[in-house]
Amino acid sequence: MKEVESMGTKESVAVLGAGSWGTALSMVLADNGYPVRLWSRSQTQAEEINRTRKNKRYLPEAELGDLIRASHQLEEVVHDLSTIVVCIPTKAIREVMGKLNGCLNRPVTIIHASKGIEPNSLKRISEIIEEEMAPEYLRAVVVLSGPSHAEEVVLRHPTTVVVSSKDMGEAERAQDLFFNQYFRVYTNPDLTGVEIGGALKNIIALAAGISDGLGYGDNAKAALMTRGLAEIARLGTKMGANPLTFSGLAGIGDLIVTCTSVHSRNWRAGYALGKGQKLKEILAQMGMVVEGVRTTKAAYQLAKKYRVKMPITAALYQVLFEDLDPKEAVDELMNRMKTHEMEDLVNILLKD
Amino acid sequence: MKEVESMGTKESVAVLGAGSWGTALSMVLADNGYPVRLWSRSQTQAEEINRTRKNKRYLPEAELGDLIRASHQLEEVVHDLSTIVVCIPTKAIREVMGKLNGCLNRPVTIIHASKGIEPNSLKRISEIIEEEMAPEYLRAVVVLSGPSHAEEVVLRHPTTVVVSSKDMGEAERAQDLFFNQYFRVYTNPDLTGVEIGGALKNIIALAAGISDGLGYGDNAKAALMTRGLAEIARLGTKMGANPLTFSGLAGIGDLIVTCTSVHSRNWRAGYALGKGQKLKEILAQMGMVVEGVRTTKAAYQLAKKYRVKMPITAALYQVLFEDLDPKEAVDELMNRMKTHEMEDLVNILLKD
Repeated sequence: MKEVESMGTKESVAVLGAGSWGTALSMVLADNGYPVRLWSRSQTQAEEINRTRKNKRYLPEAELGDLIRASHQLEEVVHDLSTIVVCIPTKAIREVMGKLNGCLNRPVTIIHASKGIEPNSLKRISEIIEEEMAPEYLRAVVVLSGPSHAEEVVLRHPTTVVVSSKDMGEAERAQDLFFNQYFRVYTNPDLTGVEIGGALKNIIALAAGISDGLGYGDNAKAALMTRGLAEIARLGTKMGANPLTFSGLAGIGDLIVTCTSVHSRNWRAGYALGKGQKLKEILAQMGMVVEGVRTTKAAYQLAKKYRVKMPITAALYQVLFEDLDPKEAVDELMNRMKTHEMEDLVNILLKD
Repeated sequence: MKEVESMGTKESVAVLGAGSWGTALSMVLADNGYPVRLWSRSQTQAEEINRTRKNKRYLPEAELGDLIRASHQLEEVVHDLSTIVVCIPTKAIREVMGKLNGCLNRPVTIIHASKGIEPNSLKRISEIIEEEMAPEYLRAVVVLSGPSHAEEVVLRHPTTVVVSSKDMGEAERAQDLFFNQYFRVYTNPDLTGVEIGGALKNIIALAAGISDGLGYGDNAKAALMTRGLAEIARLGTKMGANPLTFSGLAGIGDLIVTCTSVHSRNWRAGYALGKGQKLKEILAQMGMVVEGVRTTKAAYQLAKKYRVKMPITAALYQVLFEDLDPKEAVDELMNRMKTHEMEDLVNILLKD
């Protein structure tokens, strides 16, 4: 990859995962003058990206400049670098991080942009990374989250995201790396809140999709989203997050964009469920990971562990894993809400 | 109106204003078995409604049942009734309430569903009603607000709203009046917050419309909505509202539905501004009141009075009244946001 190195005066950055988000973030970095080494699991895809300057399967809109070089060789990609951006499905994080240890020769900062929670272990992504990486190779973990459809980022439409880390100096370094005219990066010290907001909003997007698939309209969807944010905030606060984070870009912001945009896979999967398709069929047809499905399982378990009421999560869990009829689930949700709105809302900020 | 009275065993309810929302709320009341006397300023419209069972101009989707009778005679409409629902533009409230005094012979409860703030006086709707009504005729003022497009309510799609009042017993009476299977009514004791949320979200809808009109996409819109809610909450809290109200149906819920639905007039007006049309032309073409325009002026004045930073409101004020280019305004908004998200967010809950 010598020719890439010589093109920029800045240190190269590795991006693991050549899905839509990994591709879009590579483009932002390249726009900022960083040579990017983009890792794809598939040799065919890597070669196609290098040949065509396109990611035809996951993000056909993007024109990838010469600063981006793809490879399927993990060791080659991360060799001698100190910043690694991780954009891979939650399910694959453990495996790839494990492999990474064998490829490194110095401590790195991992900036992850994955949105999920692991079922059973109930770990957030940054916790999984810390568990899997050898301590001598891990300088810090930073999360990058917020309302940011890849399809719009590659068109350089104005986009805002937040970064967070236990080490806010490293979060600020990540901010400098990505920040530009169309990609605005803000810091927020609440790592737990930023990760929880990004992961759990996918559950509400599935539910909003179901409501839309049933033809229930914008009023019903807005009610679901409002109650959805309340239940995310309720759980997050119990897990130690700052409740204000859920009023920010990684909370409401990401929830809005995921529930109201046709770009959202989670919304699209929910929509198909509302139209009567079966989950298995939907996932097979989409051919992309729908993070919300696994996250629903994890959040359902978290709600039990922290003894938090999460009616939307519980209803969706039944739809996805216990064959509850989607219409019955949404109707039940609309009917069971409390009479006094404040009774629900005050619980958000009370750590009882 | 004898024939109407005899059809129901329940006391009739007056609805003032035969626009889309007055018509939709009349239908909800009729579905609940209440005979409705619907007041229209226009004799032609009232007669057309009675003859065709349709409100062709404002809500052609609605099939109005026999329990709804329209009239342009205010005195006839409110005669002997104790509940009056008010769905008229903010601008007309003082005039109609003044006239109402001369038509009443007993104290009434006013349930208002108007969303605005009066420029210069800076009064909320309930305050205007209290000022204009003779105290001997006013039992209580209740506000009804939330994410509720009239076009969906008349299709009986699931909809949630909140009611609030200084007299929560009266708010509960309003809840009983409207509550049914598809129209879910919740109480919230925070009258100020419910009125501020409903009024100010129209400003953000105008801004979101401009962003969409400029083709900036969902990421940009979600950022604007997130920051917009923060500035509404910041002002509302200074005015004595409970910050939690802005996380509820009358806050986020109504904001979402107004910014993301094609049914929203305020969004549509903003969209046309973003496309380069002039405000005067837009208002003339729409032929309906766009509350957000006046509310922007009022909120701009409120921000000064309470010394609260409201960058979106200020930018929109310049676009609407000082001929600032919409693109310049949105670009400036995206650029001026703070580097640390939390610096902004903590201000929401701090009454400094």
